[in-house]
Amino acid sequence: MAGTEFHGVFPYLVSPIEPDGRVKERVLADLVGFLIEKGVQGLSPLGSTGEFAYLDWAQKERIVAVTLEAAAGRVPVVPGVAATTTAEAVRQAKAYQAMGAAGILAVLEAYFPIGDDGVVDYFAAIARAVDRPVVLYTNPNFQRVDLSIPIIERLAKVPNIRYLKDASTNTGRLLTILEKVGGDLEIFAASAHIPAAVMLIGGKGWMAGPACLAPAESVRLYELCRAKDWDAAMALQRRLWRLNQVFAKYNLAACIKGGLEILGFAVGDPLPPQAPLDAKGRAEVEQALLELGVLPGP
Amino acid sequence: MAGTEFHGVFPYLVSPIEPDGRVKERVLADLVGFLIEKGVQGLSPLGSTGEFAYLDWAQKERIVAVTLEAAAGRVPVVPGVAATTTAEAVRQAKAYQAMGAAGILAVLEAYFPIGDDGVVDYFAAIARAVDRPVVLYTNPNFQRVDLSIPIIERLAKVPNIRYLKDASTNTGRLLTILEKVGGDLEIFAASAHIPAAVMLIGGKGWMAGPACLAPAESVRLYELCRAKDWDAAMALQRRLWRLNQVFAKYNLAACIKGGLEILGFAVGDPLPPQAPLDAKGRAEVEQALLELGVLPGP
Amino acid sequence: MAGTEFHGVFPYLVSPIEPDGRVKERVLADLVGFLIEKGVQGLSPLGSTGEFAYLDWAQKERIVAVTLEAAAGRVPVVPGVAATTTAEAVRQAKAYQAMGAAGILAVLEAYFPIGDDGVVDYFAAIARAVDRPVVLYTNPNFQRVDLSIPIIERLAKVPNIRYLKDASTNTGRLLTILEKVGGDLEIFAASAHIPAAVMLIGGKGWMAGPACLAPAESVRLYELCRAKDWDAAMALQRRLWRLNQVFAKYNLAACIKGGLEILGFAVGDPLPPQAPLDAKGRAEVEQALLELGVLPGP
Amino acid sequence: MAGTEFHGVFPYLVSPIEPDGRVKERVLADLVGFLIEKGVQGLSPLGSTGEFAYLDWAQKERIVAVTLEAAAGRVPVVPGVAATTTAEAVRQAKAYQAMGAAGILAVLEAYFPIGDDGVVDYFAAIARAVDRPVVLYTNPNFQRVDLSIPIIERLAKVPNIRYLKDASTNTGRLLTILEKVGGDLEIFAASAHIPAAVMLIGGKGWMAGPACLAPAESVRLYELCRAKDWDAAMALQRRLWRLNQVFAKYNLAACIKGGLEILGFAVGDPLPPQAPLDAKGRAEVEQALLELGVLPGP
Repeated sequence: MAGTEFHGVFPYLVSPIEPDGRVKERVLADLVGFLIEKGVQGLSPLGSTGEFAYLDWAQKERIVAVTLEAAAGRVPVVPGVAATTTAEAVRQAKAYQAMGAAGILAVLEAYFPIGDDGVVDYFAAIARAVDRPVVLYTNPNFQRVDLSIPIIERLAKVPNIRYLKDASTNTGRLLTILEKVGGDLEIFAASAHIPAAVMLIGGKGWMAGPACLAPAESVRLYELCRAKDWDAAMALQRRLWRLNQVFAKYNLAACIKGGLEILGFAVGDPLPPQAPLDAKGRAEVEQALLELGVLPGP
Repeated sequence: MAGTEFHGVFPYLVSPIEPDGRVKERVLADLVGFLIEKGVQGLSPLGSTGEFAYLDWAQKERIVAVTLEAAAGRVPVVPGVAATTTAEAVRQAKAYQAMGAAGILAVLEAYFPIGDDGVVDYFAAIARAVDRPVVLYTNPNFQRVDLSIPIIERLAKVPNIRYLKDASTNTGRLLTILEKVGGDLEIFAASAHIPAAVMLIGGKGWMAGPACLAPAESVRLYELCRAKDWDAAMALQRRLWRLNQVFAKYNLAACIKGGLEILGFAVGDPLPPQAPLDAKGRAEVEQALLELGVLPGP
Repeated sequence: MAGTEFHGVFPYLVSPIEPDGRVKERVLADLVGFLIEKGVQGLSPLGSTGEFAYLDWAQKERIVAVTLEAAAGRVPVVPGVAATTTAEAVRQAKAYQAMGAAGILAVLEAYFPIGDDGVVDYFAAIARAVDRPVVLYTNPNFQRVDLSIPIIERLAKVPNIRYLKDASTNTGRLLTILEKVGGDLEIFAASAHIPAAVMLIGGKGWMAGPACLAPAESVRLYELCRAKDWDAAMALQRRLWRLNQVFAKYNLAACIKGGLEILGFAVGDPLPPQAPLDAKGRAEVEQALLELGVLPGP
Repeated sequence: MAGTEFHGVFPYLVSPIEPDGRVKERVLADLVGFLIEKGVQGLSPLGSTGEFAYLDWAQKERIVAVTLEAAAGRVPVVPGVAATTTAEAVRQAKAYQAMGAAGILAVLEAYFPIGDDGVVDYFAAIARAVDRPVVLYTNPNFQRVDLSIPIIERLAKVPNIRYLKDASTNTGRLLTILEKVGGDLEIFAASAHIPAAVMLIGGKGWMAGPACLAPAESVRLYELCRAKDWDAAMALQRRLWRLNQVFAKYNLAACIKGGLEILGFAVGDPLPPQAPLDAKGRAEVEQALLELGVLPGP
């Protein structure tokens, strides 16, 4: 898989877990197959939507193994590595590479604030530990660490740090990053950005939970953007945006799991004490899927 | 001016003030003439960049009068109304309409938090007090009040509330607003958004301080977006974005005033205790203007 | 009044305003008389509770004049000066001194962020403009500027900056300030601190809105603290704290005005678009006043 | 240890870890012995200072085992339980009880926001899983979850939830909690509160990292507060506060570990990518320890 360029739509996979803690392997494999059939360009297990913060190592390892086996090399699988210590992150990254991951999505968890040097050291250590592309992931909403522009400029010089997945809502920040390190770092959007706008300014695609629910429409939007058919892209984008609006209102994992249940994937609930999607949320998701034509109307 | 639709580039004018408090009328009139010659579609005195929060009523009235006189009906002038009380805001709005303003940019200042009903009442009272279009202005960075989506939906139903100028950095929020109230409310971007991206999703233009410094380039970008020549638009947008990046780092009024001084407009410094643009900032602005070709190279 | 030391309970006066904007002079004078009879050591018009952010200059001047006249030299009157520009703050401070104010409570309003030098310049300019004691006022909840410890250390060296009134909730911060500049700056608490705890660590008293409603009990608490009768002080403090808890839930001005109406002072509502105290809030305030014995039981 | 009431000074133990990940057992045992000899009333391993967020289960288990063995029943040991899932928290709590812990310090980690019911369920599940006293721990600075007053009121009704350790800086909040649930929940302060002030309002003691460095002085302060000798207590409190001020400026674990190294305990550095205490910080800690008399002068 050397030399691969990541681009396009990478759904953030949910992590289907039985009440007793076992991974629902069959359901996960089915979901992986479904998404690949719909044309997604890659898959990312153990992102935020994948509840990486709620799983132990045995569960994480199993989820990555099942995803890799079900994907069977058809698309790159880029699992999330997340830890508070450098040592643990390096350990995870090596393990995923040994299992066959095409790249690493790297997340820094923190309890105490960390200085710039510590942040750079953490990500650089992950990048040195593997020989696959590393995607920096920054989510200022849920994490205690944000990747400032100066930190990103330093990390862009690390050879296999090649992508940034930005989960802020600040689209101008992405243009600033592209202006500063565009040659070294490609950009993926997350669900709070408008994918068509990010493609307009030079993004490579998006990694996001909602793509689990509307994979074909997401891929179609990506193709329209690549073809620079902006009128058609925006028309589709507006329809897809309603889905993002719903997700912005609820716990991301609860929402995607709830939506997948509606679509017939028995992925279960998010891990307690997270609440499952309530009836009102479920109705909103269902309505959004109906309007998109993902669910057949009555 | 009835029936006018606002669109395009509305520079936020600075407020040039002598150390003794008098308005530098000649400088302001020169700036207004310069911007109109460069093709801007409108002018907005007393926005954030116009230091509305630092001026007394006599100064505000004089600035609007000078702007209107210098514009001489060539473009619409939309001054900012800002107050903590409804009564004061209504008084200002009526005065500006009587002076000839084409519309009102309405800002809510607050000290204590205000409930949704209070926010709606404030803006609706301004709208009722005039018969010109009202532009809602929301700046979550500097104000204690943000306009939530439910508040915007209520205000969109008020007949002459016709525009929203959004100074958040969240471009997705603009698409959400357009999806919800697009028929009733048109969108203008502020300097933290990427204007080309906002035009792509359906915006009408932008109201921003940096347009004082690069009016011709801003108008050219607007025209490229209107013509849907997105490749050329993005090429120009990238060059213009460097200017926005500089401004994001400094006090907005200090930056635009400093840049205008470089361009030969003796607008002076922001009002103390605000600091003037320092030497480093001045060098950065100068470099950005050189790269844009606004300043002739050596 | 030269040489006076401020200490004890300084109620933050409300600003009673007619719907047409005139000051309700008789009501204000009655309130001043009532508070002085109950033993308060000073009075502060135009603090946060006094809605300084909602009044024009004519209203402010009238409120200070009426307060001074009604106080008739019996207690020091320390009005609030608040502005975004140094020039306006100096003008207000000089005017209040000329009218007879015993000191100045100095507040910095801001729209754009201001650097440390600007903050120091602002307060130092006020102090130089008058020859009375200046009280620094910092309220991180409602203002865009906070007074950091290094700024406070610089300001403590200005000769007539003599007091700090802290409206944070961080009592440890007060001990830190006393440790660093205790010789130069005395501390007053605001309503979010526990007055007895602030007295224990070396405070001089408190300036707060709730003291308008329970002046006798507040003065009694102050005396118990001064006498170091901590058991009795804490017993009274616990009863008084219920009042502070209620006020923490509502708009401060609305709450104190609502409570004063219950006590028979026709001070009216806060200025729109601020909402008056609603029925639930009114019931809570009434209950707190009943429990304190300020209102006679049924 | 049934029926024990927790009170007094509970130092938050650091977690001494070798670069290869092994627990430095001898150093930890020495520290435990030292603190007990100095008179502390209890010990809390795996609090914030104990870097619970940076350790794996094997390390955590070893730290609690070594602490229990070294304490040998002389004082209660109350280890921290922290997890994002209810299942993992319950597992940890049962394990610590089986090992001999006298109580559980319960922390909720979160990635996505959690509703009130989820928060209550999490802590109630821990309490049901053990038959020892549970201490609720809330640290709004580092965690994504805060325990609101309504949540605390619900949790106070759970039989063996008996204490709250509050790491906010808001001392008034503690008085509010005591007023509302004082019969059911006792209060411990953390290092951002002034311990003497918390004792004045009815607290039971404090759980804090700095007590590792000045255990004898901390115990002396506690005894003075219990004896209601407030003048002597405040005199000592002022001297001890300088230590807290230093710690407020640095990473808590780095600071306490650095201070213990100065005192001769080879506890090592915090886990990377956390930075060790730098030279400036080390000098500040050393100066604070000298002034306190903990370190002998030159």
